[in-house]
Amino acid sequence: MRLKAIATVKNGICERIDDWDKVTSELVFDKRYVKGLYRLTHFRHVWVLFGFHRERQTLMRLHPRRDASIPIVGVFATRSPTRPNKIGLTKVRLLSVKGNIVKVKGLDAFDGTPVYDIKPVEEEIDY
Amino acid sequence: MRLKAIATVKNGICERIDDWDKVTSELVFDKRYVKGLYRLTHFRHVWVLFGFHRERQTLMRLHPRRDASIPIVGVFATRSPTRPNKIGLTKVRLLSVKGNIVKVKGLDAFDGTPVYDIKPVEEEIDY
Repeated sequence: MRLKAIATVKNGICERIDDWDKVTSELVFDKRYVKGLYRLTHFRHVWVLFGFHRERQTLMRLHPRRDASIPIVGVFATRSPTRPNKIGLTKVRLLSVKGNIVKVKGLDAFDGTPVYDIKPVEEEIDY
Repeated sequence: MRLKAIATVKNGICERIDDWDKVTSELVFDKRYVKGLYRLTHFRHVWVLFGFHRERQTLMRLHPRRDASIPIVGVFATRSPTRPNKIGLTKVRLLSVKGNIVKVKGLDAFDGTPVYDIKPVEEEIDY
C-alpha cells in the first residue's frame, strides 16, 4: 500500500531529545484534508500515525532504547523505528485546530516528519 | 511511503459483523519477519496496524458508524475506513505466538487483511 502524507510536523526539533512530553508541535495539513478535521476538537487526545522518515535501518532483534544492558527482544516487542514498515504511533494531547494547523503536545517526531493519519483516542475502543 | 504486508489475517470472516470482541484471528507472518516476534508474549495486549483493503471510498465528512442520526463529523474525528490512508488501528488481546502464527482476540478485520505492523501496548506510553 502506498501512503501519502496528509500533514507535516513543524516543531523545530532536528536532534534526538530525552523528554518529548513537553514538546508542542504543529501538524500543518495539506489544504485538501482540512475538511476532515471538522469536530476533531471534541477529543482531548488523538493518535498520530507518522513516518520514521530519517530511519534507514531494519533490525529484527535489538536492545530496547539502544541500551545494551536491556536484553535483546524482537522489533515487534518494541516501539523502535528500525521496523519493516517505518510507521510511528503516538498518543498526543490535542491543543487546538485552527484552519490547517493542528497543535499537539507530546509528539516524539522530528521537524519535517510526514503524518499519515490521525485518529481520535476513544475510551471504549482503546482501553 | 510504500508499506509491505508483514502478515495476513486468517479468521474466516468475510462479511461485516456486529461484535468483533470475541473474534479470534490468526496473523500469519511472512517467514522473514518471525525473528521480530521474539519475546512479544511478554505483553498482554498489542496494537495491530492493518489495511482497510476492501475500502475504495475516501470521504472528508461523514456520519459516524454510517448512522444518519449521528451528526456529521470530519473523517479524522472517526475510525472510519473512508480515510485518505486506509490504515486501521486496533488494540487486541495477544493469545499466543507459535512459529509464524500470532493468535489475537478482538481484531475487527476481515479474512485476508494485510497487517503492516504490530506494537506492544505499553502503559507508560499509551495511557
